[in-house]
Amino acid sequence: MYRTHTCGELRIEHINQKVTLAGWVQKRRDLGNLTFIDLRDRYGITQLTFSSDINPELLEKARLINREFVIQVTGVVRERENKNPNLPTGDIEIIVEQLNILNPSLTPPFTIEDQTDGGEELRMKYRYLDLRRNPLKNNLILRHKLALETRKYLDALNFLEIETPFLIKSTPEGARDFVVPSRMHKGEFYALPQSPQTFKQILMVAGYDRYFQIVRCFRDEDLRADRQPEFTQIDCEMSFVEREDILQTFEGLIRHLFKTVKRIELSEFKRMSYDEAMNYYGSDKPDLRFDMKFVHLTDLLKDKGFKVFDASETIIGIVLKDQASATRKQIDEWTEFAKSPKVGASGLIYIKYNEDGSIKSSIDKFFNTEQLVEILHSANAEKGDLMLILAGEKWKTLKGMGQLRLHLAQQLNLIPNNTYACLWVVDFPLFEYDEEEQRWVSMHHPFTSPIGDLTGNIADIKANAYDMVINGTEVGGGSIRIHNKETQKKVFELLGFTEEEAMKQFGFLMNAFEYGAPPHGGIAFGFDRLTAIMCGVDSIRDVIAFPKNNAGRDTMIDAPSEINEKQLEELGLIINQNAS
Amino acid sequence: MYRTHTCGELRIEHINQKVTLAGWVQKRRDLGNLTFIDLRDRYGITQLTFSSDINPELLEKARLINREFVIQVTGVVRERENKNPNLPTGDIEIIVEQLNILNPSLTPPFTIEDQTDGGEELRMKYRYLDLRRNPLKNNLILRHKLALETRKYLDALNFLEIETPFLIKSTPEGARDFVVPSRMHKGEFYALPQSPQTFKQILMVAGYDRYFQIVRCFRDEDLRADRQPEFTQIDCEMSFVEREDILQTFEGLIRHLFKTVKRIELSEFKRMSYDEAMNYYGSDKPDLRFDMKFVHLTDLLKDKGFKVFDASETIIGIVLKDQASATRKQIDEWTEFAKSPKVGASGLIYIKYNEDGSIKSSIDKFFNTEQLVEILHSANAEKGDLMLILAGEKWKTLKGMGQLRLHLAQQLNLIPNNTYACLWVVDFPLFEYDEEEQRWVSMHHPFTSPIGDLTGNIADIKANAYDMVINGTEVGGGSIRIHNKETQKKVFELLGFTEEEAMKQFGFLMNAFEYGAPPHGGIAFGFDRLTAIMCGVDSIRDVIAFPKNNAGRDTMIDAPSEINEKQLEELGLIINQNAS
Repeated sequence: MYRTHTCGELRIEHINQKVTLAGWVQKRRDLGNLTFIDLRDRYGITQLTFSSDINPELLEKARLINREFVIQVTGVVRERENKNPNLPTGDIEIIVEQLNILNPSLTPPFTIEDQTDGGEELRMKYRYLDLRRNPLKNNLILRHKLALETRKYLDALNFLEIETPFLIKSTPEGARDFVVPSRMHKGEFYALPQSPQTFKQILMVAGYDRYFQIVRCFRDEDLRADRQPEFTQIDCEMSFVEREDILQTFEGLIRHLFKTVKRIELSEFKRMSYDEAMNYYGSDKPDLRFDMKFVHLTDLLKDKGFKVFDASETIIGIVLKDQASATRKQIDEWTEFAKSPKVGASGLIYIKYNEDGSIKSSIDKFFNTEQLVEILHSANAEKGDLMLILAGEKWKTLKGMGQLRLHLAQQLNLIPNNTYACLWVVDFPLFEYDEEEQRWVSMHHPFTSPIGDLTGNIADIKANAYDMVINGTEVGGGSIRIHNKETQKKVFELLGFTEEEAMKQFGFLMNAFEYGAPPHGGIAFGFDRLTAIMCGVDSIRDVIAFPKNNAGRDTMIDAPSEINEKQLEELGLIINQNAS
Repeated sequence: MYRTHTCGELRIEHINQKVTLAGWVQKRRDLGNLTFIDLRDRYGITQLTFSSDINPELLEKARLINREFVIQVTGVVRERENKNPNLPTGDIEIIVEQLNILNPSLTPPFTIEDQTDGGEELRMKYRYLDLRRNPLKNNLILRHKLALETRKYLDALNFLEIETPFLIKSTPEGARDFVVPSRMHKGEFYALPQSPQTFKQILMVAGYDRYFQIVRCFRDEDLRADRQPEFTQIDCEMSFVEREDILQTFEGLIRHLFKTVKRIELSEFKRMSYDEAMNYYGSDKPDLRFDMKFVHLTDLLKDKGFKVFDASETIIGIVLKDQASATRKQIDEWTEFAKSPKVGASGLIYIKYNEDGSIKSSIDKFFNTEQLVEILHSANAEKGDLMLILAGEKWKTLKGMGQLRLHLAQQLNLIPNNTYACLWVVDFPLFEYDEEEQRWVSMHHPFTSPIGDLTGNIADIKANAYDMVINGTEVGGGSIRIHNKETQKKVFELLGFTEEEAMKQFGFLMNAFEYGAPPHGGIAFGFDRLTAIMCGVDSIRDVIAFPKNNAGRDTMIDAPSEINEKQLEELGLIINQNAS
């Protein structure tokens, strides 16, 4: 071992001990006949002291050492004269007696500090330097702890971690697969899993009863903001359970993680139906750290003679507490936002309920004071509050108001820090209409069990599905599954599969259902996203050691890249030079 | 929840409780006015009793239930008249009051018993049924425990589990990569990792100090016996360490696993150099559960006038205790084995040291009794022992004798059961000559540090590498790595890389070495193989939930398979119809 202690370990009780440390030079300060070096490793920083009084040659040598050199030193622990209360090791320093340069370093292209001067691109290319910075290091340590505590919690509940294959079969349903050409079976391909969904269901059929896996998944999508082609799931499945069993078990998991890793006791997990979430927050993943619940005004305002309202399917308002004093400029900005593609409204209506009881509104001309008071009262608005109203086509208006709600909360700093609002959204529709493909598709996936049977209006069939939402982000989702061949066949039929297609792609699962499939259900958490929330960072790139950039490239290793002719030939493939 | 208890849980203290169980029908026995059903789940088997005295309709219903039906029953726990001491639940039975058939089952194509009547092919296709059998279930439970205990042990030593990417860069050095065509960058490919080797080294450069990961790896090789295209590694790396630190740390891991999972305290881990292993056991992974160490006879027997010996580079013998009475037929069989391609010798020489002190040998004509006695004594053979001798070209004879040693030990039942002989093999050669490619290749991989410098005869350079061997199987291997750009460049040069090629493929690692790379080293364990050894099974297929067959196919899901034209077009690929 190159060291007796780490750089985060030494305290006042180690005084006068001879120790050996190894690490990276964080900085060097030369002061007359003294040189100080801050030596860093994963565990902390320790001050090294070189003095010309003690060893002038060593001092000379120390002055040749620059940032990020890897050195090994031996010396005696001494109490510092000027203690640093911000460092756990701040009471001591090492009076160096031996210095060994293990490896020099070029000057890094950016500073290795909590706030670095490096741009994203540079930091991705030199990821090994970026990963030295505390923020990233702390995120990866937290990620490690989350994974371990997840395993401990689930193991204690008799879940088994079972590994499922990565080289599986491509299925055109859902997102696009990454495929892997087979050399032994030319012209054939494996696919990388988008999730172990069918395998975990097969494990339930096989009697494994409680399965989990922390597992990499792959999706070849056009990368939108903060998506990665490979991502990690906490994937879980249970047999002989109903929805409530799953909600309890995995609410327990999230509580356990917050408690053990962040020392936070989460408060109540709310429950909300999909319809309620959409109607009152304009989102299937409402952020409940703040209120601003929608007020439905259609009945009150429609057909009262104001053309805009009369032509609208839906009229909804929100109340901004104590914002009656909002300036013209501010309201203009919000109106611009309402008209932007993100919301897509034709305009934004306001009603100011001033402190003095007077009312000012953009619809003064169409509604008298009495009517305006009625609107304000129906929304429980008080003096000093501001009310904003959108009107238009139902879904567009709901979603638009959801966007506006988030925008206002951020802009007005209504979102409390270090608060975690956890929520189950339940009773999703089983199907949704895909305008592009002109057909009904599964809102979750085709293995989701309906609530009740599959008759009646397809749009009205509810799924026995649930999403866990924290702070407006979907961190997990799942469902009770279909475990019966006939129901599964019927769902594929409703999705427009021929029986042949369904059997070709999912025959193994439907056959398995004929050999004693138990009732089962499960959930999968987006582990990157959950970690990001618990680290308090916005981008999942900050919780992944080696992420891809927005073009799906790893710029450090330069992947993807061309392969040689021999490889292509062995795989029986030709590059299509005409491909766009 | 569909049950109040599992099928492995009820004991005499539960008598008179009303319980609900759910599970699979293992078997049904009809006896006059009684029917018994053994209900099975992951946790055990519980006997259900239906009686016409209590409920004749329920008895009728029970008699419609067949093997592998999934049922739910409610009833009262009663003490059995005929207890079954072989079952943990054997003291009780359930007098069933309610019966609910949750899902019927077709008759399985093979029996779900510890010893099944199903052939391998059928069991792979219906893997969900095969996985219901106890032997496979117990293996997967043990695998889960091994993984969890590995994580707990390493976490306690400050190792961090850090996930590395699966979509990386293809490198033609070493085994063949599986590749993944990029849709966003047409004509370019990712590769699936053969191991996270370079990433874990990068993590050391990034200061993470102690890394591990239980991770899937991929190798597109022609599948020999018991290889899988995807396999799992326990992958580990440490900074600021020397070889001894790694051996101690990971000997500790294996001890911990045997102790916690199998309640076995392992005895001493022997150490042996590669040269010693080859010279005395004819293998770099000797099985030390039995002795039969080679005796070198070249000096004693060469140039004594026997042409076969005189023409041989090496003459070696082994002693079989108490086998002087071996029959002619047996010696003939061993001679056949010695002449088979596995050994490749021209013949096998024996010397019988009979109980009465007389000697009988196939080289009686060339050596007199005095000489034969000298040979026997030099090998410490005693009366009643048999000595076997091979002669020929050095490496071929050593390896051949190694094979013969294993064959004899198996045939003569010299290998004790439930014994674990653990061994570190160290001081491997850094390079070996590849006859096919006509060049020197790395014996482990090009990142392995040499012992000393890289001058002198290339064949004589030793690697700072080590393999862990248990019972003649290599379960893990690793090395102290190169952490210096110049040494790394020199190794690539010796391997025949141009500087350009080396930089193109591994430039990111060599560049990283210029920014403060610490001394580091690591190890990787083959998790499938380790689990197989600890489960006492020969094939890794028995410790993998969903293995591929010998042709690399998953016959349950039918992968690999063809993909559609649209997918190919999006990837910019054409199938080469002329490929052989």
